[in-house]
Amino acid sequence: MRPYVIVNTAMSADGKLSTRERRQVKISGAQDFNRVDRLKAGSDAVMVGIGTVLADNPSLTVKSEECRNNRLARGTSLHPVRIVVDSHARTPPDAKILHKEEGKRVIAISKRADPAKVRELEKFATVIVTGNDRVDLAEMLEELGRMKIRRVMVEGGGTLIAGLVTAGLVDEIYTFVGNIIIGGKDAPTLADGPGFVKESEFCRLVLLEARRIEDGILLHWKVEHRQ
Amino acid sequence: MRPYVIVNTAMSADGKLSTRERRQVKISGAQDFNRVDRLKAGSDAVMVGIGTVLADNPSLTVKSEECRNNRLARGTSLHPVRIVVDSHARTPPDAKILHKEEGKRVIAISKRADPAKVRELEKFATVIVTGNDRVDLAEMLEELGRMKIRRVMVEGGGTLIAGLVTAGLVDEIYTFVGNIIIGGKDAPTLADGPGFVKESEFCRLVLLEARRIEDGILLHWKVEHRQ
Repeated sequence: MRPYVIVNTAMSADGKLSTRERRQVKISGAQDFNRVDRLKAGSDAVMVGIGTVLADNPSLTVKSEECRNNRLARGTSLHPVRIVVDSHARTPPDAKILHKEEGKRVIAISKRADPAKVRELEKFATVIVTGNDRVDLAEMLEELGRMKIRRVMVEGGGTLIAGLVTAGLVDEIYTFVGNIIIGGKDAPTLADGPGFVKESEFCRLVLLEARRIEDGILLHWKVEHRQ
Repeated sequence: MRPYVIVNTAMSADGKLSTRERRQVKISGAQDFNRVDRLKAGSDAVMVGIGTVLADNPSLTVKSEECRNNRLARGTSLHPVRIVVDSHARTPPDAKILHKEEGKRVIAISKRADPAKVRELEKFATVIVTGNDRVDLAEMLEELGRMKIRRVMVEGGGTLIAGLVTAGLVDEIYTFVGNIIIGGKDAPTLADGPGFVKESEFCRLVLLEARRIEDGILLHWKVEHRQ
């Protein structure tokens, strides 16, 4: 069974995740940072796309002492499993996500990935192979389910989120909307990729909660799955 | 003095105004439609970019009987002045905005516009010329101010909004966030154009109100003008 998938992102008031140069920008503040840390700490795994690894080089660790202690008290690992969706095995072998602190890593690749690069990544991570040229996201999630991962938090970027949404694999979406306009027709958005064209294809949501946090607002959506 | 500028848009939960094919989609419902009609009826002018005219062919008239009667009772025209920002005079002479119902129209063009096309448009609209190749938005607004237009509602699209935001010419932004994901890296967003790159350039907002309407949420932002 595939894990429950929760997308968490921060976007500007005009729906951008960062600037057209894909430089990470401060959209939310300390209070929202803590919310995200708690959400991460409550997940079995945290997932990003290769674009986010290359642009931001995140470590994806749980940051607060309290959240770490809670995880240890529950008998789980200090950090959730860290997963990179990386069709062509482009994760740099020195990426922070592979080295910062202890914990299990998974790299999801496609059959097209360069075997030499894959062997290098296997030194640091469990490698899952699905799909011919691109990772088959549904198959990958089934495989993660077999690894006892039941709840995955997805931190971006827009291409991975769009792929998951299009495949009907997302259950909840948290969007912090910050009090800035970044602009730019080429800036990454919450859901990039080709996008939907027909209204019948649109992913439908239910707004569970809207809560002001600092200078922005957190929107919590549930995805309506088609029957 | 330039008019007070209020941007009103509806976007999907991922910040898109429409699909990558720029086909108009239903993002909000009847209740939000009435809010927009009241906002329009309370404005001296309503403005769109040429992209919106070519994609949607809107008439931009006030729709409800009540709003029309309120305008007439106040001694104003039935409809706000309808303005198209159209640097190269591409508005089709049979566009609905030029013909549907009574009222004043303004087409803002640049010096580069084809004189033959401009002569055609002058049959139906007052033409304002600013800027060499692109309309100078600040100058255009000053000119609208001289025409006694004090409050302008901007209905899109993303390029015009981005231009106004970048030039520091927007005072308030209403964004209805609907319960759908449209996706698409090429789909139009609330603010397109080149976008900002440095955090110091970002347009800063203050969230005045967040209000649930039907299945979405209306965010009402005020723009913080730099001193």
